[in-house]
Amino acid sequence: MTRADGRAVDELRPITIERGWSEQAEGSALISFGRTKVLCTASFTNGVPRWMTGKGKGWVTAEYSMLPRSTNERMDRESVKGRIGGRTHEISRLIGRSLRAVVDMKALGENTIVIDCDVLQADGGTRTAAITGAYVALADALEWGRGKQFIGKNAKPLFDSVAAVSVGIIDGTPMLDLAYTEDVRAETDMNVVVTGRGLFVEVQGTAEGAPFDRRELDSLLDLAVGGTATLAGLQASATAG
Amino acid sequence: MTRADGRAVDELRPITIERGWSEQAEGSALISFGRTKVLCTASFTNGVPRWMTGKGKGWVTAEYSMLPRSTNERMDRESVKGRIGGRTHEISRLIGRSLRAVVDMKALGENTIVIDCDVLQADGGTRTAAITGAYVALADALEWGRGKQFIGKNAKPLFDSVAAVSVGIIDGTPMLDLAYTEDVRAETDMNVVVTGRGLFVEVQGTAEGAPFDRRELDSLLDLAVGGTATLAGLQASATAG
Amino acid sequence: MTRADGRAVDELRPITIERGWSEQAEGSALISFGRTKVLCTASFTNGVPRWMTGKGKGWVTAEYSMLPRSTNERMDRESVKGRIGGRTHEISRLIGRSLRAVVDMKALGENTIVIDCDVLQADGGTRTAAITGAYVALADALEWGRGKQFIGKNAKPLFDSVAAVSVGIIDGTPMLDLAYTEDVRAETDMNVVVTGRGLFVEVQGTAEGAPFDRRELDSLLDLAVGGTATLAGLQASATAG
Amino acid sequence: MTRADGRAVDELRPITIERGWSEQAEGSALISFGRTKVLCTASFTNGVPRWMTGKGKGWVTAEYSMLPRSTNERMDRESVKGRIGGRTHEISRLIGRSLRAVVDMKALGENTIVIDCDVLQADGGTRTAAITGAYVALADALEWGRGKQFIGKNAKPLFDSVAAVSVGIIDGTPMLDLAYTEDVRAETDMNVVVTGRGLFVEVQGTAEGAPFDRRELDSLLDLAVGGTATLAGLQASATAG
Amino acid sequence: MTRADGRAVDELRPITIERGWSEQAEGSALISFGRTKVLCTASFTNGVPRWMTGKGKGWVTAEYSMLPRSTNERMDRESVKGRIGGRTHEISRLIGRSLRAVVDMKALGENTIVIDCDVLQADGGTRTAAITGAYVALADALEWGRGKQFIGKNAKPLFDSVAAVSVGIIDGTPMLDLAYTEDVRAETDMNVVVTGRGLFVEVQGTAEGAPFDRRELDSLLDLAVGGTATLAGLQASATAG
Amino acid sequence: MTRADGRAVDELRPITIERGWSEQAEGSALISFGRTKVLCTASFTNGVPRWMTGKGKGWVTAEYSMLPRSTNERMDRESVKGRIGGRTHEISRLIGRSLRAVVDMKALGENTIVIDCDVLQADGGTRTAAITGAYVALADALEWGRGKQFIGKNAKPLFDSVAAVSVGIIDGTPMLDLAYTEDVRAETDMNVVVTGRGLFVEVQGTAEGAPFDRRELDSLLDLAVGGTATLAGLQASATAG
Repeated sequence: MTRADGRAVDELRPITIERGWSEQAEGSALISFGRTKVLCTASFTNGVPRWMTGKGKGWVTAEYSMLPRSTNERMDRESVKGRIGGRTHEISRLIGRSLRAVVDMKALGENTIVIDCDVLQADGGTRTAAITGAYVALADALEWGRGKQFIGKNAKPLFDSVAAVSVGIIDGTPMLDLAYTEDVRAETDMNVVVTGRGLFVEVQGTAEGAPFDRRELDSLLDLAVGGTATLAGLQASATAG
Repeated sequence: MTRADGRAVDELRPITIERGWSEQAEGSALISFGRTKVLCTASFTNGVPRWMTGKGKGWVTAEYSMLPRSTNERMDRESVKGRIGGRTHEISRLIGRSLRAVVDMKALGENTIVIDCDVLQADGGTRTAAITGAYVALADALEWGRGKQFIGKNAKPLFDSVAAVSVGIIDGTPMLDLAYTEDVRAETDMNVVVTGRGLFVEVQGTAEGAPFDRRELDSLLDLAVGGTATLAGLQASATAG
Repeated sequence: MTRADGRAVDELRPITIERGWSEQAEGSALISFGRTKVLCTASFTNGVPRWMTGKGKGWVTAEYSMLPRSTNERMDRESVKGRIGGRTHEISRLIGRSLRAVVDMKALGENTIVIDCDVLQADGGTRTAAITGAYVALADALEWGRGKQFIGKNAKPLFDSVAAVSVGIIDGTPMLDLAYTEDVRAETDMNVVVTGRGLFVEVQGTAEGAPFDRRELDSLLDLAVGGTATLAGLQASATAG
Repeated sequence: MTRADGRAVDELRPITIERGWSEQAEGSALISFGRTKVLCTASFTNGVPRWMTGKGKGWVTAEYSMLPRSTNERMDRESVKGRIGGRTHEISRLIGRSLRAVVDMKALGENTIVIDCDVLQADGGTRTAAITGAYVALADALEWGRGKQFIGKNAKPLFDSVAAVSVGIIDGTPMLDLAYTEDVRAETDMNVVVTGRGLFVEVQGTAEGAPFDRRELDSLLDLAVGGTATLAGLQASATAG
Repeated sequence: MTRADGRAVDELRPITIERGWSEQAEGSALISFGRTKVLCTASFTNGVPRWMTGKGKGWVTAEYSMLPRSTNERMDRESVKGRIGGRTHEISRLIGRSLRAVVDMKALGENTIVIDCDVLQADGGTRTAAITGAYVALADALEWGRGKQFIGKNAKPLFDSVAAVSVGIIDGTPMLDLAYTEDVRAETDMNVVVTGRGLFVEVQGTAEGAPFDRRELDSLLDLAVGGTATLAGLQASATAG
Repeated sequence: MTRADGRAVDELRPITIERGWSEQAEGSALISFGRTKVLCTASFTNGVPRWMTGKGKGWVTAEYSMLPRSTNERMDRESVKGRIGGRTHEISRLIGRSLRAVVDMKALGENTIVIDCDVLQADGGTRTAAITGAYVALADALEWGRGKQFIGKNAKPLFDSVAAVSVGIIDGTPMLDLAYTEDVRAETDMNVVVTGRGLFVEVQGTAEGAPFDRRELDSLLDLAVGGTATLAGLQASATAG
């Protein structure tokens, strides 16, 4: 079985990670999963919000947004509508949770990191690209904080890496890393967030069409574990040196 | 291993479903999972929004909300804050998707059903109680629509039932239907939506503490499938006659 | 003259008060005036907002809201619309003023009580049911505060009780406690808030149809004073013991 | 007993009505009750909102607002806060209801009138000044509509006039037309809207301090009826010729 | 060439400045440029926002708004729409910048002045009338602050005056102080803010129709410098004594 | 006199224009003025808003926004704050006006173009870069519309090009194309929008510090005319072929 773009069912789209794309942020990466492009920046602030002060722990949060013409049809801006939609909230929360799963808040100390993931071009898998790129931006921001001595010399705030990929069932066949045209056709769509050590952080599967059985669920998880292992390797290359 | 309230790890809290609690709505149910109480109403409107007209298909959507003092500490009202939080949006979307998974939109015809799930008292598992109760309200609203001949005599808009339950890992032990005090201690928390025939509609697992491995994921899914089978039986009793 | 539901013109609908309906709030009551059902909770907080600190006085405030399908036709949620309507504001303010009229803020001390009145089912008279039920929730929250020693042993923060009822003129006849179908037909509609000792706290009369003369006004006030005396008796029974 | 400004207890402040103050509106009046100044404009539109079309009836609505520095201390603008407060909503609704009480909507025909009452300077009684001035603006807008033949030659959309005044009890003495410094001291505050023929449209009495008895209520109503009769005379003079 | 109202191309409309129109504000002026009327108030507060404290400097800011029926067709209120439009923001910012250009913030000391410019009637040039009137209100508020000793005896917070006027090209002819009917026909529209000493604070020229060349730009600037010199004289008269 | 980055006072920063950067939009350009990077997309829709239908004319509008971490310090998102700031509104309106100045709306026909200018990295001059890049995106979108035959074969909707540049006075010296560190030091800041033929569309000069005289104004205009001529050449190269 071949896919529209010629990939095998267990093959990722071409992945690129441009580390340090932004010259202003403490950490940044422009990541692409095929035509999907997400600019991830990490903003490091020494200190935490007042309600967290004095606990010796830090905080990591994330905001996701799409440019109005990142998509095929222009969407209205959420700033113009005056409210953030449900999908945006949901993805922002997912990115934040995924990153916090690999951060030791005690080791981070009383520092705050805000991750911004802005989708410049969308072709499916924007949230998984965002998580994968955000990890790279986060890692650089933490190094920046260490350089400024906001983080202790021997502290290890990152105890694992984290990456994400989408999987889905199309015409009964489980597939890895869905492009937009595949995503709209999928009966089941699942986003899986996995650490570099192969542990699950999030499993979010939804039957868009027919509900799925346990065997299908297992196949999807297998594909996702393979895909995120590849992404973990690419993250390691990007952050090396 | 016993739990704080004396339940076995694979035991649901006491479940009650008061069908037809509201005298105004076309379908309604006051459901309780232990101390968690959710009022679910289904509002049936003949016709669909303009953008869907003429396609011969219906629509089902849902809104979830918590009363400000449903919780142990009073929360500000979202209407007063002027914006709906991310969690509310996320749960409203989840309930809507879960119900749509068992509705044949062609059989429903050009009719709209809005489900409201208002949490009157919260003690963990509000979203899963909401889905389980909403199904009962939905089923009654569909019968109402059939009575009014908005739905054809032989049309079968509901082709399956749907229920949901939370599962989680506490101190390394997978457990079914977490109460609030369990939920806050859980390392991993998963909400699973399953149809009466045992197929998955949603699997949403999150590592709140330590990431989880494949074996733990399997145990959680087993517990959830058992719990939702029990709930499906209770729904069948509630809607019978 | 008989009314649609067989009542006499000076007869209240069946009134029930379920004290302590909510297990989370410091005080609560589910009150019904016929089919109208309002859940009233009182949240007690030790301390007052910063701008009131140090004056030795407390504060009581209220918020009123209707569930979207409490009514015969579903209404949009105010949280979804992003703004609170005029009617909601007006009733919230009325409930707060009515309760404050019987509270000695010095005796309350630096404590804050927030009353939430959520209409679960609406059939006319929701604001008067809310005030009447809110008093019961308030009384219990004050006892809770006394038990926790946030209120002095001999302090008497409540120096009277308070209840409310609607009255109106239909086809020229003054009537007590209007149900929804009566309310929409009334030429004049009046909400009257009266203390247990028979003093007026609020008199809000509006000519929806024909303006009214002094004699009609007097009849309405007579009916309201009678109705609220009955309600005061029911409140006393509910809070006894 | 004399008041701070030397008035008798049953004496209005100096009242002026500048009819036609605005050159743009179809009807307008700048009214002052002592230092309180309200600019009232009436905007006449031929036609009604879509949901009212074809019923042969018109609509009258009102909006009230205060300039940020109409008061002694500057208030934030509601447009800047992004939401309208409860008091503003409540007064806007009161003005609209009061005017509609003297308009025959059939005689008005399918025309819409929007009244704007903007408080330029506030010294107590802004809502009663607004109602009293709004009537003058409304009357002129109706004449404008008749001139344009949007209203039939013999149609009588106004079947009565309407005016309003505040009354209150200060140190046990009932008084007419409270200035701001009196208003803050009043134990009871009542706004009464009365037609030219002496019928009540609204009676809104609130015990700000001690609840009031029936005898006090009667005294307040007597004062209000006297005050609004005087205002009706001034309105008649203002709109004559 | 004569204009619709008979003015010469370099002639201002009749200008009136009623200083101290508001009895509540520390400084105020009701200014008219022909039929355009703007009520300007200046609110003086001793102290500055927290983020400015301790720098020994003050702050001046401004808010502009139009009454809904100041215009020929009624506009919706921005408070009702829940958001402030772009034009309102832009003009508020322009007024604030223009006034700050003549204020020595060190000499003002830690005091805050908020200028409100509310357009009561609009016939073109509302922003330039607002700036011109706001200066008068500001000057009086500063004197008030000096009287209260919030400003030092010898401090000179105002080192120049400031006024503004619109100019534009209509049918190829540059003209001064455009009325509304002229404004809508103008090919180019320019607002120029000039100090009493003849220096430019703002030059905001926009080609609404055909772009303009350097020679036309020069003619417009000449007209504006003449017009603002006249306005500076009128301001001096208004603030004298 | 040399500048921090070694430029001459009349020298632009390095300018790059990556035409067609976005694969989804009908026209797009990623433009950089030194470190300032703005992604401009043009979305072409056949048809116009309802209120413009039937007039045979089109519409061009623009929205400007900054990514939260485009700047040196992270800003809150306007979508999160729920309202768009004054500066954003002002710049969006400026971009729209600037582009409309070179478009023949009749020749465009009943088509709508929405320009989005999203600042990915900000180092001064974001609005001028946005206008300059938006022109390139607009030109391509118009060609796309011609290819789709939404625009007539011989229609010439663009009758000129348009570009913009900032100029300012620093330490008394007029300079071209200010970088952020220069912008904050400038006494006067001016944005000038000029067509390819050298005509002015907008002149927006503001004295941030000392007001400026006529001679300074003339020098700034000279610099701006030179700079925009260079930009017009770069636009021509970018859109050629």
